[in-house]
Amino acid sequence: MDMIETLHEVSTATITSQLIKQGGMRTRAVRGVRPIDPARFRFAGPAVTVRYAPMREDLDGLASIGHPDNPMTKAIETMPAGSVLVVQAGTMQGGALGDVLIARLVARGVAGVVSDGAMRDIAAAAGLGLPVFCAAYTPNPSAAELIAVETGGVIGCGGVLVYPGDIVVGDGDGVAVIPRHMAEKVAEAGLEQERMEAWIRKRVEAGEPIAGLYPPGEATLAAWRAHKAG
Amino acid sequence: MDMIETLHEVSTATITSQLIKQGGMRTRAVRGVRPIDPARFRFAGPAVTVRYAPMREDLDGLASIGHPDNPMTKAIETMPAGSVLVVQAGTMQGGALGDVLIARLVARGVAGVVSDGAMRDIAAAAGLGLPVFCAAYTPNPSAAELIAVETGGVIGCGGVLVYPGDIVVGDGDGVAVIPRHMAEKVAEAGLEQERMEAWIRKRVEAGEPIAGLYPPGEATLAAWRAHKAG
Amino acid sequence: MDMIETLHEVSTATITSQLIKQGGMRTRAVRGVRPIDPARFRFAGPAVTVRYAPMREDLDGLASIGHPDNPMTKAIETMPAGSVLVVQAGTMQGGALGDVLIARLVARGVAGVVSDGAMRDIAAAAGLGLPVFCAAYTPNPSAAELIAVETGGVIGCGGVLVYPGDIVVGDGDGVAVIPRHMAEKVAEAGLEQERMEAWIRKRVEAGEPIAGLYPPGEATLAAWRAHKAG
Amino acid sequence: MDMIETLHEVSTATITSQLIKQGGMRTRAVRGVRPIDPARFRFAGPAVTVRYAPMREDLDGLASIGHPDNPMTKAIETMPAGSVLVVQAGTMQGGALGDVLIARLVARGVAGVVSDGAMRDIAAAAGLGLPVFCAAYTPNPSAAELIAVETGGVIGCGGVLVYPGDIVVGDGDGVAVIPRHMAEKVAEAGLEQERMEAWIRKRVEAGEPIAGLYPPGEATLAAWRAHKAG
Amino acid sequence: MDMIETLHEVSTATITSQLIKQGGMRTRAVRGVRPIDPARFRFAGPAVTVRYAPMREDLDGLASIGHPDNPMTKAIETMPAGSVLVVQAGTMQGGALGDVLIARLVARGVAGVVSDGAMRDIAAAAGLGLPVFCAAYTPNPSAAELIAVETGGVIGCGGVLVYPGDIVVGDGDGVAVIPRHMAEKVAEAGLEQERMEAWIRKRVEAGEPIAGLYPPGEATLAAWRAHKAG
Amino acid sequence: MDMIETLHEVSTATITSQLIKQGGMRTRAVRGVRPIDPARFRFAGPAVTVRYAPMREDLDGLASIGHPDNPMTKAIETMPAGSVLVVQAGTMQGGALGDVLIARLVARGVAGVVSDGAMRDIAAAAGLGLPVFCAAYTPNPSAAELIAVETGGVIGCGGVLVYPGDIVVGDGDGVAVIPRHMAEKVAEAGLEQERMEAWIRKRVEAGEPIAGLYPPGEATLAAWRAHKAG
Repeated sequence: MDMIETLHEVSTATITSQLIKQGGMRTRAVRGVRPIDPARFRFAGPAVTVRYAPMREDLDGLASIGHPDNPMTKAIETMPAGSVLVVQAGTMQGGALGDVLIARLVARGVAGVVSDGAMRDIAAAAGLGLPVFCAAYTPNPSAAELIAVETGGVIGCGGVLVYPGDIVVGDGDGVAVIPRHMAEKVAEAGLEQERMEAWIRKRVEAGEPIAGLYPPGEATLAAWRAHKAG
Repeated sequence: MDMIETLHEVSTATITSQLIKQGGMRTRAVRGVRPIDPARFRFAGPAVTVRYAPMREDLDGLASIGHPDNPMTKAIETMPAGSVLVVQAGTMQGGALGDVLIARLVARGVAGVVSDGAMRDIAAAAGLGLPVFCAAYTPNPSAAELIAVETGGVIGCGGVLVYPGDIVVGDGDGVAVIPRHMAEKVAEAGLEQERMEAWIRKRVEAGEPIAGLYPPGEATLAAWRAHKAG
Repeated sequence: MDMIETLHEVSTATITSQLIKQGGMRTRAVRGVRPIDPARFRFAGPAVTVRYAPMREDLDGLASIGHPDNPMTKAIETMPAGSVLVVQAGTMQGGALGDVLIARLVARGVAGVVSDGAMRDIAAAAGLGLPVFCAAYTPNPSAAELIAVETGGVIGCGGVLVYPGDIVVGDGDGVAVIPRHMAEKVAEAGLEQERMEAWIRKRVEAGEPIAGLYPPGEATLAAWRAHKAG
Repeated sequence: MDMIETLHEVSTATITSQLIKQGGMRTRAVRGVRPIDPARFRFAGPAVTVRYAPMREDLDGLASIGHPDNPMTKAIETMPAGSVLVVQAGTMQGGALGDVLIARLVARGVAGVVSDGAMRDIAAAAGLGLPVFCAAYTPNPSAAELIAVETGGVIGCGGVLVYPGDIVVGDGDGVAVIPRHMAEKVAEAGLEQERMEAWIRKRVEAGEPIAGLYPPGEATLAAWRAHKAG
Repeated sequence: MDMIETLHEVSTATITSQLIKQGGMRTRAVRGVRPIDPARFRFAGPAVTVRYAPMREDLDGLASIGHPDNPMTKAIETMPAGSVLVVQAGTMQGGALGDVLIARLVARGVAGVVSDGAMRDIAAAAGLGLPVFCAAYTPNPSAAELIAVETGGVIGCGGVLVYPGDIVVGDGDGVAVIPRHMAEKVAEAGLEQERMEAWIRKRVEAGEPIAGLYPPGEATLAAWRAHKAG
Repeated sequence: MDMIETLHEVSTATITSQLIKQGGMRTRAVRGVRPIDPARFRFAGPAVTVRYAPMREDLDGLASIGHPDNPMTKAIETMPAGSVLVVQAGTMQGGALGDVLIARLVARGVAGVVSDGAMRDIAAAAGLGLPVFCAAYTPNPSAAELIAVETGGVIGCGGVLVYPGDIVVGDGDGVAVIPRHMAEKVAEAGLEQERMEAWIRKRVEAGEPIAGLYPPGEATLAAWRAHKAG
């Protein structure tokens, strides 16, 4: 199983725990984002970044995603299948993407979309089957508030530093971003943590108290190793 | 098909785009409101306005919607069937309306309700079949924070200037407000935009890249005209 | 029917109205909390309190819920069946509880959980059948932002003063907290209010105008008394 | 000494305490406003109200204070000497008043200005000698965000319900609003409180502990009455 | 008098009015920034941009301004005398610059500094004679929250799109940003507006009512032209 | 020179840098607090804590600082000379302390006051000579929003965990809190850093570029050691 496949079985809660444990990193969960379809939120893949800045009233033409130099258009048309579009919007008022662009992302095989701003055409977009996370909904087109100014750069998204290629994972709790160089180890240790916690949760559901059991103390860890060796 | 009927087929995303295109108006989407029933959000109709101000502890009696001079009572009992109640609450703490008043609005044939404040009795109200948009839920009665001070005046609702009679439209993205004098043209151009975008989206789903296609460049527009002339 | 059973039939909207009427108390609804499962939100029971404070990077060990002196562990393992865990988080960034701890609360027969902070493992936790209210979701473990510092003390949760033993009630509108000494009277008067309002709502649905009917004037109250006596 | 003169010697801190004591009113201090000149903040007088709503891009002409029907112009040109201009802005982005309009208010003998929004031309305006309170500074003209829609109506300003004629008082702590019918009694009791607290503060400065002294217990109150009879 | 010199005599209030009048631009005032020295705020010059993103705990070394590739170091050491450092911080928690770096900017002849984030070493920095605008003060070093990721790019600062070379002007109201291609005309028309408004203000101080006078109607404009020709 | 004396010569900016360097602690600056007197802000001393919770309308009597069991009264009357009162308010609306209580703190020899809430009687309090930091000003008495519920416990103040006895330091940038066990080493290393940075700043003011100089590289550190040995 490769790293991305593994991460599909690791929750963002486990990933953020591993990032604290392995690297003292407490700032890797994107703040305030929710999936537009509450039943479709699982994704994992490398980040392709787009950065918005505040609009200026005379730049609508240039800002248009129809313009050949528009960074959002470039990102959408060049990002590899399996990658994740990560957008720094910096405001909740403008709608970064609507259903037509999301339909294009589906056609291109993109794995997911994350924006710390708003989305629009939510009802139509939610039916397209792509996990899309955002901080708000708005009818406004992005040009009402925003202009795309760069793709391929380092960005901040919901309080998280994102380099292109960082591994982005989404689930029901939100979105976590793993620095590229840590992704293999986080995936591996995360999967192990998931398995152990599933085993612990069964014991909890059977009525055991949590002290020493969760988080696991030495005796619990030994029991888990014995159980695995089974 | 009349203007209100037409607007039932035009999304708020399209309406806000038309308001920018036709009038440079970037401030016509009500900020932060969501439907209380995620499956019931489509409405369109002319605004009837009510304005709240902060409560004062000695005014509970006067504030009561049972009082004959209460502006909310007047609005509810006199607004025409098909109109939309638009409320300036100015705080998310007070519950502007609960299920009994919403039941009365249903009985009176009202088309929808929008408040930039909170609602209460959500579970009961959501079952009444009326599209209701608000910014928060609270158990609090409106008298805990608010007093209705006027109906029929000009208000601000979620950052949008609303005159009585402005056309208010809701869908899954939120609520847009069309100045009365622009409503016919926005409806007409909006419906045309919806039809073209549906045709574009099919092409996108069939795999075409977006540059020149969305937003449509000259060639795409010509193709659309040819398609229509079909 | 005892007081807790009665409160299962009284909405939080009615409870906050009674608290204003009986005690001039306008500050008894927890601000900003929503149930993690939109279909499971009804609970009532006495509060067991836990207070968090901001984390300090060198205290992770002590902060761990595995530590014998951790206040959250103590609360979870000692709170009586039927009681409600009420958490002062004071930030939306840290995840106060995840699915393993919520599974333990289910095993212990707890009636509900309320936090003015975040929760994690939402998808897994929502399946456990316990009403859980919070202000946000996050993948972050509580240790990323918070340390549990006390159980059994007086706290503030979402703008509400909560003493251990206060009666906490949740429904679709959110959560209300009844001072312990008022709970019997609020329950009793609340149930009466619910019954009258159901009767009023039927009349409203039958087409009666609200003036004098809701809130009920003297004639309506007399008719209600006659109906009950009926 | 008349009521307004008396209130010049009563702090807003004392006024809000009296409003709680006399009327259970906890919501009479305007939130978030500060004087533009930190050395000039004392004023008292009856409120003249102006209400702003969000601007609409096509209304700049009508919104202009040069327009004969502009509510702000009407307020400025008709408010009596000694009265206080109280503005509901509802946003911190637009500058409700600049130095030219404030110069006009000075010429008209106005006692003070309070807005829950922004002001502009601060450096010039601060030199004009009028106590002006606002929540923010901005270079923006009001037309960038706001349109004046009414004067003489009831408004909410910084969370406070303000009727025209309510007595508005400013000092270094901010602004308090006294309902008109309570002003005489609040002024009288407030002045008495100020005198007693000055006497108490001297005793505190002389080294007495505060228990029983502040707030004054029975013995302290008796001593104060003896001191006054002195 | 060249354009920059002219802008030293034009207030930011006048500049934002001109940007609305000349280009319909309502979004050119940086939100929420104040000068650290209330007596030193006048500056004008072309923007040099620096962009921060959220820190990551393992990047402290790279983030250090001592690192040869640090974008803040590059900006400070290469920006021309007379230019203005404009910083996109995106958080109020990290201190973008302290007294040592500000001393270096003084030595390099920089005209001003604007950040939508925090500053530190305020007491020491305020004594250095450079106009510095920020949104908050904090003891925290920038590395506590931020990492400088780019200089010379387009940024958003306090809701304003800023291209390198845009003309940035500060005064007591805050900071306005003029698109480079409009600066000459804004300066020229702004100076004319300042002169006319000074003349108007004298008439206002002499007791004239504002209707028709401010903003100036036709008769007032004719009188002003006559006065100038005078 | 003892530790507290040493800390009077170390800035909060240096302290927070040392806390990151020595303990990886990024969360030790109290957010959002400013001194009420911009010319009086220097203090250092051990924390005495008080915690507020939201008020309840029927508890005014108990909440009164005149009540013998009021935690604020206890704190004020028992805290040692030289200690610092640190208050968790958790809201900016209530005024935690006014001039009479601050006068008592002066009489008792207290070194400073920090609250993440509001203060009142600011003009009078600022004249008393005690460094007082808060997040807002309000006329409201604390009883309008708050009730003191504990003294001597662990609290969170402005995002910082504070144990009684932690060393609290204030200056023009705000307030930093040093864990008690780190205070000696932070004071010592901080003073050394202050001296080196003063020496660096002189070199910067003399025209040296910052690369390698600030923050100091190896050559600069060696030169500093030579200078000290000088």
